[in-house]
Amino acid sequence: MPRLHPRAIPLADALACVTSVPLTAEAAVPPFANTAMDGFAVRAADSGPGARLRIVDTLAAGHDPAGMVVGPGQAIRIMTGAPIPEGADAIVMVERTSVAGDDVVLEVAVPVGNHVRSAGEDLLPGQEVFPAFTVLTAGHLGVLASLGLRRVPVFPRARVGVLSTGDELVDGPDELRPGQIRDSNRHTLLALSRDAGCEAIDLGLVRDDLDTVRSAVVGGLDSCDALVTSGGVSMGDFDEVKKVLVELGASEDAWMQVAIKPAKPLAFAMVGDKPVFGLPGNPASSMVSFEMFARPALRQMMGHPSPERERILAIADDGFSRVSDGKLHLVRVVGAFADDGRLHVRSSGGQGSNLLRSMALANGLAFVPDGDGIPPGGEVPVALL
Amino acid sequence: MPRLHPRAIPLADALACVTSVPLTAEAAVPPFANTAMDGFAVRAADSGPGARLRIVDTLAAGHDPAGMVVGPGQAIRIMTGAPIPEGADAIVMVERTSVAGDDVVLEVAVPVGNHVRSAGEDLLPGQEVFPAFTVLTAGHLGVLASLGLRRVPVFPRARVGVLSTGDELVDGPDELRPGQIRDSNRHTLLALSRDAGCEAIDLGLVRDDLDTVRSAVVGGLDSCDALVTSGGVSMGDFDEVKKVLVELGASEDAWMQVAIKPAKPLAFAMVGDKPVFGLPGNPASSMVSFEMFARPALRQMMGHPSPERERILAIADDGFSRVSDGKLHLVRVVGAFADDGRLHVRSSGGQGSNLLRSMALANGLAFVPDGDGIPPGGEVPVALL
Repeated sequence: MPRLHPRAIPLADALACVTSVPLTAEAAVPPFANTAMDGFAVRAADSGPGARLRIVDTLAAGHDPAGMVVGPGQAIRIMTGAPIPEGADAIVMVERTSVAGDDVVLEVAVPVGNHVRSAGEDLLPGQEVFPAFTVLTAGHLGVLASLGLRRVPVFPRARVGVLSTGDELVDGPDELRPGQIRDSNRHTLLALSRDAGCEAIDLGLVRDDLDTVRSAVVGGLDSCDALVTSGGVSMGDFDEVKKVLVELGASEDAWMQVAIKPAKPLAFAMVGDKPVFGLPGNPASSMVSFEMFARPALRQMMGHPSPERERILAIADDGFSRVSDGKLHLVRVVGAFADDGRLHVRSSGGQGSNLLRSMALANGLAFVPDGDGIPPGGEVPVALL
Repeated sequence: MPRLHPRAIPLADALACVTSVPLTAEAAVPPFANTAMDGFAVRAADSGPGARLRIVDTLAAGHDPAGMVVGPGQAIRIMTGAPIPEGADAIVMVERTSVAGDDVVLEVAVPVGNHVRSAGEDLLPGQEVFPAFTVLTAGHLGVLASLGLRRVPVFPRARVGVLSTGDELVDGPDELRPGQIRDSNRHTLLALSRDAGCEAIDLGLVRDDLDTVRSAVVGGLDSCDALVTSGGVSMGDFDEVKKVLVELGASEDAWMQVAIKPAKPLAFAMVGDKPVFGLPGNPASSMVSFEMFARPALRQMMGHPSPERERILAIADDGFSRVSDGKLHLVRVVGAFADDGRLHVRSSGGQGSNLLRSMALANGLAFVPDGDGIPPGGEVPVALL
């Protein structure tokens, strides 16, 4: 999947975005040697239990030390973060001192460099701070702020348009006429897109009509980097999304049926460099196929170095029974780490592809391969959601 | 920590919020029996290999089945999600049929109820959908949308004001004068607050002056549910945040020194029902103390049933050496799950309290208890960040 064009965005918007270039420190962090403690700046050679030094000045953090000098037998009162004044080579923390008139009496001898943080201790000028393809956390943003950056070059959040199709669908609390149900998938897919770090755009409900679906898809592609649709991709006569995606270049053979359960059927087309994911209308299938196909692709567009979720080898406390059907079964599970340090999982309830509730209750998907299932206490790979 | 007053917010804003009351289904989901497959609605008794039925109608999803009847020897062409028409009691999927003129020829016999999803299969009227204190995921939002809800009663996101204090601090790319450094903590704490699900408000940089700090704190409490400050809480003469928090009711003894490393010193006050967290100015200490104290409290305000991060018993591949000092050491680590299903962790680099970079590189905090440390290959509890 091609990555989006990088651009520089404000630090405040960059949480969870991915850097597009290596970032280098232009100056040292910290820029000068400073004290890690409140206390007294001294010459280490003068220190010792009972040593009495004359307090010649006070230096707060942020104040310019120019002109201040610690001479032999002298000390400067100093606050955490303040620069080490000329002549001093160590700090005695305030808890190990007492003040007597104009003097400070030390309780201890300290070595050269005691509680001194040297210039460049965190970063040296020219040092690579983070490589390209770094996923920015709160800590990264702090480091970038400490370098004086206000903007950071990243792959932007993908703008994902989400639409539902289906003449049976109603949005919101209006009374249902016979044969109608309420649209749930669009709300789920919008939230999943946001959760994946995308900017999710609600393109609304679209009627099952070829022209209407085509213009919704083409219009959505104008303003979005990717589209996710729900419904209209199975074998029915009214599955207009599938027809539109085939018009737009989807392969009718390769993608329409995927050997996983629940999730098929599925349609996929690239329109220029913009992917369109035609997800099934069944709520759980729609959610699982977003997880399996759309989410990794969207994260790849946003530069993520590991677009797939990590799979943890978990213990299936109750096992998972199944029969061989040529498909990978994705079982909705509730998982928790136990005292043995292992992730233990159990089914979250009914696994019908229409049953969204067990999907809501799940915090993971277990990958149960084709075959006879997993015995109780057996191991199974699980993606935590 | 008292919880915020619940209020009903739009579904689109409710991802990761926590429900304040149990939610009940007013109507069945799905509201009527419908077909799970595209195919033909038939009487199961009529089905069988080679059975030939007259196609009397077509029923798309969303269309009213009133007046349609499947009589003996008849079938209605039907699309996924459409209601089961009167007379029919089973669906034959389209892949198991062929059409010959006005008739459909079945390949199989099907039982009563085949591919029929019954009314209320997901939710029955009056059924509790989710209890109070449910953390809303994308799946939950879909379920709520399927009930016709547009808003959901939740504990709102805490509005967290974040300010940094320190005369040495500069914001942004301006040139540094001697003794000055750039503010990083505010940017980190804003991102951590957002990451915890809060609405983060940037209250800016505040000079080290008692009146200025007091008015920033009091003003911030006016518009926010909680405050997080950085700097000004140690033993120095210019630590004005500590003085203001003591004025506001912080205990000078109980909270000022916490037996963890890195993180002390710390100040805390409740002003009415609003917490103020006075975090230390050292970047890593500030981040760790947010993790340990502010984040669980803020999540508790937002109704989270488990405000603390889960701790996973991990394997310390290289061990963690330390000496006994009466403190819990929180070691920044990089962790990954291995083929044995266990989380394996290693130090993320220099652990000095001023070294933000190793915090940025870390994806977890290891809890190394007071004592001699953890031998290589030993076990240690880890919170993944």
